[in-house]
Amino acid sequence: MRIVALAGGIGGAKLALGLSRILSAEELAIVGNTGDDIELFGLRVCPDLDTLVYTLSGLVDPERGWGLRGDTFHCLEALRSYGLPGWFQLGDRDLATHLFRTRMLNEGADLVEVTLEVCRRLGVGPRLLPMTNGYHPTFLETDRGKLHLQEYLVREKCRPEMRSIVYRDIEKARIPEAVLQLLSQADGIVICPSNPLISIGPILAVPGFREAVSAISGARVAVSPIVAGEAIKGPAAKMLGELGLPVSAAGVASLYRGLATHFILDNRDAELQPQVERLGMVVSTRDTIMSGLKEKVDLAEGVIELI
Amino acid sequence: MRIVALAGGIGGAKLALGLSRILSAEELAIVGNTGDDIELFGLRVCPDLDTLVYTLSGLVDPERGWGLRGDTFHCLEALRSYGLPGWFQLGDRDLATHLFRTRMLNEGADLVEVTLEVCRRLGVGPRLLPMTNGYHPTFLETDRGKLHLQEYLVREKCRPEMRSIVYRDIEKARIPEAVLQLLSQADGIVICPSNPLISIGPILAVPGFREAVSAISGARVAVSPIVAGEAIKGPAAKMLGELGLPVSAAGVASLYRGLATHFILDNRDAELQPQVERLGMVVSTRDTIMSGLKEKVDLAEGVIELI
Repeated sequence: MRIVALAGGIGGAKLALGLSRILSAEELAIVGNTGDDIELFGLRVCPDLDTLVYTLSGLVDPERGWGLRGDTFHCLEALRSYGLPGWFQLGDRDLATHLFRTRMLNEGADLVEVTLEVCRRLGVGPRLLPMTNGYHPTFLETDRGKLHLQEYLVREKCRPEMRSIVYRDIEKARIPEAVLQLLSQADGIVICPSNPLISIGPILAVPGFREAVSAISGARVAVSPIVAGEAIKGPAAKMLGELGLPVSAAGVASLYRGLATHFILDNRDAELQPQVERLGMVVSTRDTIMSGLKEKVDLAEGVIELI
Repeated sequence: MRIVALAGGIGGAKLALGLSRILSAEELAIVGNTGDDIELFGLRVCPDLDTLVYTLSGLVDPERGWGLRGDTFHCLEALRSYGLPGWFQLGDRDLATHLFRTRMLNEGADLVEVTLEVCRRLGVGPRLLPMTNGYHPTFLETDRGKLHLQEYLVREKCRPEMRSIVYRDIEKARIPEAVLQLLSQADGIVICPSNPLISIGPILAVPGFREAVSAISGARVAVSPIVAGEAIKGPAAKMLGELGLPVSAAGVASLYRGLATHFILDNRDAELQPQVERLGMVVSTRDTIMSGLKEKVDLAEGVIELI
């Protein structure tokens, strides 16, 4: 069995971790969002890829869900004392990942190669690949002007009201050859419970990506990141509402219409089942919160049963 | 009075600190060596400039003589765990200086502007300027091949036998306008007790620099970095010997012939006085070791008396 999971940050990484415990490294591959990438101080920072790598390697800070456990922030403090914007949380050990990545990129490697190498160095089994090799950051038009996604998420703490999303130059992005190969050989797809607008959205916006996923004959299972009308973590619910989309698991499902063949609702959203079924999806209900490792593995098993 | 000091790393920084205690910020300017600059992980690192800035700001680690007091090395440890060369000592807080510098350079500032800004941020009074805005690293031809100066100094711990020095593309280097102005207005020059081959040598190798210094009508005072045939710190003695030059204060003086009008020997080298006088210099003897702040200030006073 060959499974490809599409994932963004923390929620996606949780399910990816669950999947990695029941599938072999050969059976599982993950395509990570790079729409939240940001260039800081000349360094290429890939927060979603890093959250996936740190989670899968067991190095992640369990409290925050991102960054490295026990990391310090001495460099960041010094950057602030230089009067530099210190809102982005760069840990000292975490910085090494950005330096390593930037060095490899500057030496001519592409992001696929860099990401595979980071995984290898940190002992991550499943292949993790970026959705594209290029730099296509997501910007939000808000009531406080145009913001890079990280400015919105971290600096502005998601407070601005969102009007629209721009995946910069995404029409010029290309699916990496290695990702095309994975998709062409996949027996099933998992769309992780990540924000559909800023985590899964950019992946599906890469030209040809939606088509390549839809061409897979096996089950394509999406898990709702919205439970009882609220995001488990992050601004998904607020964003959906501000864009005038239904703030519910059914609203998310509608974004995956024609793409997902199966949709997993949280038990608490069971009443939405008929509504999602009308979108042409096979619907099942489960506990989707994934608070501990057991819950992650349970949900992963539920997903794989469908495939 | 307007004094320009030429300085390399630790020894130069000690005298610069002494000078900064007896001269006002308007009276003192320092031109720092950038021949020991290195690009690491895409960052521009200027070890001599940083040693000067950290020493003058009082932030320097007093034991090592370089780097920041109390700095940690967590990022460096993580870089090593990525299999990256971790021989260069990048402190976590120190890294912020390199990130700040690289960011400003990438945004189009030149190294003069960056260095002045770093000084301003860290509260350094005297102007500190790089000898040139370009990147002209020093390479050594050795019995173990061609080495970047930092590879020789730090990674190889000065063990290889040196055959020749190359200041890369130094013939294309230009003296920054701000440095030319300082030199044209200077009432006197101090050549700090820095390594004449790898600290002062690159400065004087910038086309026109030697001439601009020689054109100053005031006293041009050099302080020997060699005492009793040995370097106070660093590989100056070993290097002089391997290049077939006399390993003595008089040997250093001969490198500054026609440039320095005055030469300060350590008290222990008083017997070299006639030899150095024959080079056409006014010679005085002093305690030049600068172990504490008092000794730094005393030597600085001795230098300024001559000007």
